[in-house]
Amino acid sequence: MVGVDEDKHAGRDIVGKHGEGGTLRYDLMVERALRGVMVESLRLTSKHGLQDNHHFFITFRTTHEGVAIGDNLRERYPDEMTIVLQHQFWDLTVSHDSFSVALSFSGKPQTLHIPFAAVTKFADPSVQFGLQFEDIPRPSTIPDGAPTDTNTVTGPTDSADQKKQPSQGAEVVALDGRRKK
Amino acid sequence: MVGVDEDKHAGRDIVGKHGEGGTLRYDLMVERALRGVMVESLRLTSKHGLQDNHHFFITFRTTHEGVAIGDNLRERYPDEMTIVLQHQFWDLTVSHDSFSVALSFSGKPQTLHIPFAAVTKFADPSVQFGLQFEDIPRPSTIPDGAPTDTNTVTGPTDSADQKKQPSQGAEVVALDGRRKK
Repeated sequence: MVGVDEDKHAGRDIVGKHGEGGTLRYDLMVERALRGVMVESLRLTSKHGLQDNHHFFITFRTTHEGVAIGDNLRERYPDEMTIVLQHQFWDLTVSHDSFSVALSFSGKPQTLHIPFAAVTKFADPSVQFGLQFEDIPRPSTIPDGAPTDTNTVTGPTDSADQKKQPSQGAEVVALDGRRKK
Repeated sequence: MVGVDEDKHAGRDIVGKHGEGGTLRYDLMVERALRGVMVESLRLTSKHGLQDNHHFFITFRTTHEGVAIGDNLRERYPDEMTIVLQHQFWDLTVSHDSFSVALSFSGKPQTLHIPFAAVTKFADPSVQFGLQFEDIPRPSTIPDGAPTDTNTVTGPTDSADQKKQPSQGAEVVALDGRRKK
């Protein structure tokens, strides 16, 4: 069996936070679980490459701690940046809490180092699969009894008439351009 | 950090199957990730008990390999059975691929042993959180290019007008009685 260290994927200890209060934080658990899907996808790609037209759009906060990108990129994308892993990427390496990849910018290769926690969106348009991660109020700030189950996952064609409530945590989003927010 | 062996949660090696074909099976990954949420919830409960009115409804296939229940229960529930973990349960133990729990039936305690793979539904009505697991066609039977992203997760109040497509894999369902199938 090929093991995947899912317990390290999110780079965040939410289990301890559960234990403290005794409340089950499904929002945090689902967020961590879905971040694990992103990590697993990147890890498999680092080993086997991308096949069957798979490709990734990855959006991350350039201001997040641990993000290492060139000054030129940081100036151009002061808040958020989206990279595409499709034909031209090299040296994809995946650690327990981050990944690195070399991409070409204006013809020059540049290696980016991105903590998973910085990622806000992960999408594979080839199969209309997308994940979106949002900031979840942590136990110290969430009010007692607040709903903790507002994560949503929608397929590619079922969101047109979906009434969305304000979401917290992770969601799988439709990529057909009709997603409501 | 409290580690959770998520790589063992689903009791199924989907990573290897990815590697064989090179196709990223998001449906399997999301299913495994969401089964991990169930396992984590049970594991936390085995350690800390249930608090804040949390309680679980767990539906499983009694015909699934590895399910160990008394003959009386097997006769009464030849296909599927739902148990409730709320006030009266004992000796909840969680292993890498199954859990055991003692419940009272007609006043007599009985220990049930249930592989996670046998579970079809996991719900915590206290926060309107639910997971539903369905059989996913395995790589040997799924046609090339078939959509693999039909998992859906819905919050408690946003499913009334949701058009559901036939789902494969795992989904988080609304528990307000309005879920469409």
